[in-house]
Amino acid sequence: MATTADRIDVDRIAVSRHASAAGDPIDWIDVARNLATEFAASAREREQNRTKATEQIARFKQSGLLALSIPKAYGGEGLDWATLARIVREIARGDTSLALLLGVHYIGTAAVWIHGVHESGADFLKETVENRWYIGVVFNPLDPTLSVEVSDNELTIDGWKSFCTGAPLADRILVMAQRADTKALVNLVVSPDAGGLAISADWDAIGMRLGDSSSVRFESVKVARESLVGPAQGVLESTPWLSLFGLQVWLLYSNYYLGAGLGALAYAKHYTRTITRPWISTGLTRASDDPYILELYGRVHIELRGAELLLDRAAIDIEQAILRGPSLTEAERGEAAISLFTARVATARAALDATSQLFEAMGARSATDRIGFDRFWRDVRTHSLHHPLAWKTREVGDWALNGTYPNYKSGYA
Amino acid sequence: MATTADRIDVDRIAVSRHASAAGDPIDWIDVARNLATEFAASAREREQNRTKATEQIARFKQSGLLALSIPKAYGGEGLDWATLARIVREIARGDTSLALLLGVHYIGTAAVWIHGVHESGADFLKETVENRWYIGVVFNPLDPTLSVEVSDNELTIDGWKSFCTGAPLADRILVMAQRADTKALVNLVVSPDAGGLAISADWDAIGMRLGDSSSVRFESVKVARESLVGPAQGVLESTPWLSLFGLQVWLLYSNYYLGAGLGALAYAKHYTRTITRPWISTGLTRASDDPYILELYGRVHIELRGAELLLDRAAIDIEQAILRGPSLTEAERGEAAISLFTARVATARAALDATSQLFEAMGARSATDRIGFDRFWRDVRTHSLHHPLAWKTREVGDWALNGTYPNYKSGYA
Amino acid sequence: MATTADRIDVDRIAVSRHASAAGDPIDWIDVARNLATEFAASAREREQNRTKATEQIARFKQSGLLALSIPKAYGGEGLDWATLARIVREIARGDTSLALLLGVHYIGTAAVWIHGVHESGADFLKETVENRWYIGVVFNPLDPTLSVEVSDNELTIDGWKSFCTGAPLADRILVMAQRADTKALVNLVVSPDAGGLAISADWDAIGMRLGDSSSVRFESVKVARESLVGPAQGVLESTPWLSLFGLQVWLLYSNYYLGAGLGALAYAKHYTRTITRPWISTGLTRASDDPYILELYGRVHIELRGAELLLDRAAIDIEQAILRGPSLTEAERGEAAISLFTARVATARAALDATSQLFEAMGARSATDRIGFDRFWRDVRTHSLHHPLAWKTREVGDWALNGTYPNYKSGYA
Amino acid sequence: MATTADRIDVDRIAVSRHASAAGDPIDWIDVARNLATEFAASAREREQNRTKATEQIARFKQSGLLALSIPKAYGGEGLDWATLARIVREIARGDTSLALLLGVHYIGTAAVWIHGVHESGADFLKETVENRWYIGVVFNPLDPTLSVEVSDNELTIDGWKSFCTGAPLADRILVMAQRADTKALVNLVVSPDAGGLAISADWDAIGMRLGDSSSVRFESVKVARESLVGPAQGVLESTPWLSLFGLQVWLLYSNYYLGAGLGALAYAKHYTRTITRPWISTGLTRASDDPYILELYGRVHIELRGAELLLDRAAIDIEQAILRGPSLTEAERGEAAISLFTARVATARAALDATSQLFEAMGARSATDRIGFDRFWRDVRTHSLHHPLAWKTREVGDWALNGTYPNYKSGYA
Repeated sequence: MATTADRIDVDRIAVSRHASAAGDPIDWIDVARNLATEFAASAREREQNRTKATEQIARFKQSGLLALSIPKAYGGEGLDWATLARIVREIARGDTSLALLLGVHYIGTAAVWIHGVHESGADFLKETVENRWYIGVVFNPLDPTLSVEVSDNELTIDGWKSFCTGAPLADRILVMAQRADTKALVNLVVSPDAGGLAISADWDAIGMRLGDSSSVRFESVKVARESLVGPAQGVLESTPWLSLFGLQVWLLYSNYYLGAGLGALAYAKHYTRTITRPWISTGLTRASDDPYILELYGRVHIELRGAELLLDRAAIDIEQAILRGPSLTEAERGEAAISLFTARVATARAALDATSQLFEAMGARSATDRIGFDRFWRDVRTHSLHHPLAWKTREVGDWALNGTYPNYKSGYA
Repeated sequence: MATTADRIDVDRIAVSRHASAAGDPIDWIDVARNLATEFAASAREREQNRTKATEQIARFKQSGLLALSIPKAYGGEGLDWATLARIVREIARGDTSLALLLGVHYIGTAAVWIHGVHESGADFLKETVENRWYIGVVFNPLDPTLSVEVSDNELTIDGWKSFCTGAPLADRILVMAQRADTKALVNLVVSPDAGGLAISADWDAIGMRLGDSSSVRFESVKVARESLVGPAQGVLESTPWLSLFGLQVWLLYSNYYLGAGLGALAYAKHYTRTITRPWISTGLTRASDDPYILELYGRVHIELRGAELLLDRAAIDIEQAILRGPSLTEAERGEAAISLFTARVATARAALDATSQLFEAMGARSATDRIGFDRFWRDVRTHSLHHPLAWKTREVGDWALNGTYPNYKSGYA
Repeated sequence: MATTADRIDVDRIAVSRHASAAGDPIDWIDVARNLATEFAASAREREQNRTKATEQIARFKQSGLLALSIPKAYGGEGLDWATLARIVREIARGDTSLALLLGVHYIGTAAVWIHGVHESGADFLKETVENRWYIGVVFNPLDPTLSVEVSDNELTIDGWKSFCTGAPLADRILVMAQRADTKALVNLVVSPDAGGLAISADWDAIGMRLGDSSSVRFESVKVARESLVGPAQGVLESTPWLSLFGLQVWLLYSNYYLGAGLGALAYAKHYTRTITRPWISTGLTRASDDPYILELYGRVHIELRGAELLLDRAAIDIEQAILRGPSLTEAERGEAAISLFTARVATARAALDATSQLFEAMGARSATDRIGFDRFWRDVRTHSLHHPLAWKTREVGDWALNGTYPNYKSGYA
Repeated sequence: MATTADRIDVDRIAVSRHASAAGDPIDWIDVARNLATEFAASAREREQNRTKATEQIARFKQSGLLALSIPKAYGGEGLDWATLARIVREIARGDTSLALLLGVHYIGTAAVWIHGVHESGADFLKETVENRWYIGVVFNPLDPTLSVEVSDNELTIDGWKSFCTGAPLADRILVMAQRADTKALVNLVVSPDAGGLAISADWDAIGMRLGDSSSVRFESVKVARESLVGPAQGVLESTPWLSLFGLQVWLLYSNYYLGAGLGALAYAKHYTRTITRPWISTGLTRASDDPYILELYGRVHIELRGAELLLDRAAIDIEQAILRGPSLTEAERGEAAISLFTARVATARAALDATSQLFEAMGARSATDRIGFDRFWRDVRTHSLHHPLAWKTREVGDWALNGTYPNYKSGYA
């Protein structure tokens, strides 16, 4: 099945394409990994205290990670999407909420350039790099009530959207709204302090607690015409090529899950080896020799590792599709979508299993707030509810059985 | 396989054995069910606010449920253990933490009479009924450090134990400690305000949050000799008959899990039918017609229902074994143990599956604190870690394959 | 949930209702169990040689089991349907094919009296007992092409049906055909040597190999008007009560699966204990001490035992519904159906798991024709395909979520 | 995790390394695929008739596939092991038994050269190419009773071994036997018509029926000293490098399972689309639109695809380890082993699931000998019993948790 796509090597790309000022290559995955280790140390406490991620966003800014998703032409690092997804995964190993916040910045900035830079998009991207802006989004396509009136020198936005990730922490917010006249969906940028814009504090999910995804209400919010950073005639869905954007977004989703699963595995291993008491019936002195604990780690590793390879493959397939350009056919888009949906179901299931079952390898004292290990399960359980897994499975099956590709025009497949 | 054991009918027992003052039978299961409905209404809020269960313990007292586990000879209702387990399950449907608190009262009082009333036990039981005392426990056999010096007119207790359920809320605490001289385990009663007794506030489990199971420290706690409510020569484990007490305790555990699973199912059904939006790809107007949601409810029901029947059977088998009396053979005890362990694995797995998977039938907006549906999973995940399920499965397998019964002398099987 | 239904005790019924000539009760379940042991000894060889079950049908005749399904009024033993189902299960433990053959005789005879004896039915039943006839069926409702012309003194049958279990071995065949005039389905009896009747030898299923279910073709088969053993105006489906017959048939199906699963478990246990070599990495001298083999037996027992209790309950619920009589309401019929469908999914899944996974407890040398252990899986895999399990699960889910009962008028639910 | 290993691309290797006489590259995977299609067409019939694979071995000879495993220095094609494994997988898609027969030829020839060509090995390899010999093996290390006396001009072999795949069809047989003097294991070659050599016809496995793996008995079989084709001082296990041979063998095993799973999927898809009748409750006209059938295909694809990527990765990891040469460290060998064992468990489980569950997407009429679809399950079920999956899972877990590598000296890990 696999062919030329194999030739992209995510690790290699990240190392070789990008060089520091002194000419030495920067290993961005390594940068992310270090940041993840730092974030992991405080993750439990920040989550339980509901500490806003202000400091961590600052760390993103310092680290250079926020520039990775912006093309070199606008001053960014222009990393490929597969590597960006991998970076998000690394962050998720430490703190899934923060991966969500980073991911949404990548999505928000990519939305401006991914299918060509339009109107005032170039300026926005340059400013984002220069000012080290963090970008949040108002995107959720399942809330179709946000409308914008476009006049020659002004946009007027009205309505409400839920799941506006990062908006409460953002320097600028990328908004997808529906033109009142043509009903086309357009992208525009607003400042969080725009008059008439109210970001609620209603994010009360049981997981991704710090990945602030509150709802946002617009009441006659007026912004300059230049805020329209995408094509005035509309974005998304009209061609296989434009619909790739959805796949890019969902690729990040799966990396949240896989990262959480791998983070949970790393945490549990340390705990089992250093804290867990052997079950009294084992007659063993170390829990790490219990045959059922060993088998459990084996099962969890096998499931996560299979999911990881599926996701690495999907990242390559999506990157390949992006590189194909606007001539991307429906079948090519379809193959990339199936590759991703396959990975999506596998990563979510693997992460749900790992984050719940590993408690059994840690023992009765591991289910406490002091440990906070349940955040991994809550993070995955919460976010993986976006798009029902059963329907993703069906889409994969419809392709496997009937050769039918997911309907790229739907916006949800 | 089933034979005479079938003749006990849990529902019928509860109704027919017990009559109110006026001669009308009281349906205690119905009393529990009504209380559960009442508790369910406030469960989310009380959990999130960490409201101590003081008011709910008062409701237990008013309802008469606390007297059910005490023999009629001492003024109680003397219900059989199968019915008590069922009552605990009903409470768990509304609030698993409160079921844990009620269960521990049943355990604490049963510990005094179950194998014959010794020494000052009779007085303690009578007082418990008269004063409507709520009894907590200091029991955890995996913390073997609590010792008691027994003199002619005084007991002196020193040491520490974890998982002392209900102790912080109790009128009296049933303590299992090791005699300093003979090393035998004895039962005694202390008042929570005894000098030298310190109940910590260290209960920070992710589930069963209100089932306060903090640790307790004794520093030269002195109580009267009459506080020794069990045999001075020791309790537990020396015969198949005495070891039944472990099975009685664990029977309640499984009822916590099943109750939580059934409670989650009831909650989810209501939510799916009234709030869940149909997934956009379904083309349906109601989520409750989604083929995958229907299949999911089918799977959850089938698994929970199988677990329920296994648990009802185990309750009958244990009650039968109790009725057999001290001549209970090792094989008879073994059969009851296998029946229970079979149910224990099945109930825990079914409840873990239900409480996690039902989110998928409720949709992306169900994973919020406002809903608080995750408490069901947290409750089951937390408590089912007591005794590894893999080892219970092995014990069942050793019997299925080799006809070997769990070692009743171990105290953990 | 269950209440009065508990009062029927399948084992007790079988023992107490029926007495031998000398007044001693006959334990028919025991009779079946002994026969199963006898059949098991030759099952592998007979299956591999495709030995027609002629001898075993003769053993059924001698044993008295064929009379159990016929009411006492017509000379039979008149056992309740729950006990008949249990007897079929016992036979299945030894040889699932033979259970299928016995089951179809019970179905064929019950079809004549279950909702009242019509027309010539009484004579047919009496003759069946007197002559110790074995009855096969031509029933499959999914092949709707069999039609019958009914005249005053003659019936003329034309068409074809598949899955005609037992027909090639039968003394008489119970046929369900569609009246050419009214399109109503009627029951009639034919002799296998009737002119124009051709029983093909096309039964080539991978399982249930000896449960001969070939197809049958009728070309102007003429039989006497008295052959119409059911109501001339038609049978089935028009009321909740009449639709119970489908549940009775399917109850037997689940008993085939459970019996096969339990038979496989018994076989595997003996093999593991006496033949399986311990895996070299275990360092053990007996395979029966391998921790993973013990766990596997535990898992298989737990799943099968849960299924068994569900099936025992469904048998009781169906028997209760039968006893309710023609006033049976749609809701009562629905409850019995859900109870059965719950058991059906659980028994099929448990039996599929057991019959495949137990190879792993027996080792590499167990997958041979000399052992023939694969027949258990093939039997279950083959027969459980009748009615998709996913759709049964959905029907359970539709009831669990929406309170909707399976459509009794459909003939498949 | 993955790094440089990514640089090997199995598909590319196969195409680019090898050129036909005319200079055009031969795509050996394509050759295998075409042969598989040819074999698939007759697979059911040959299996049911127990047709010896004589004709198919001839087709292997004609196709050139038998030369692929022999280094160019001896006239072969010298393909890397990853590609050979892939070729075996392609054959397995058509007929798993034949893949087993091809695999054993690769193993038998590789045993001679893989760690350096010794003694008369070079001549044997050249003759194998020249004469287009098919090589069987007498290898099973779990039967340690085969001994060889080594004198200056003669070898004398005595003893018995089971699972001698391909021996009954072979031109020459590669034998692993234990030196009577040093107890070292040595490789030697015998002709199937050697005096005293008796190949029994006792292969009666329920799967891999045509992959003839009968037992072989040697009674004072005398062969020339030159038959010793490996080092006289012994083979295997003494270093990480030599122990790689076990991984090479087991890599082929997993490819049998995956090939069978993929072959079953392809078969089932065609059947569902062209033959399966929609279940009556669906109200649909095509089974291929049934939501549960679509979901089932999705699940099967997702599981198989994850297993496929794990196996492709393991192939690369093993090939990399081979290329590392004798300096291969224990840790490097361990990483390759874990990669393979991960894939092994995943491929076996995926193939067992697919080959059993896909019946549910094909319907009640698919479980017949006429279809013969059960051969896929029987093939996988039979062969995957070699090395218990639970112990492979444990080995993966011991590495995941404790960083412990499988014991390469054991010969089974």
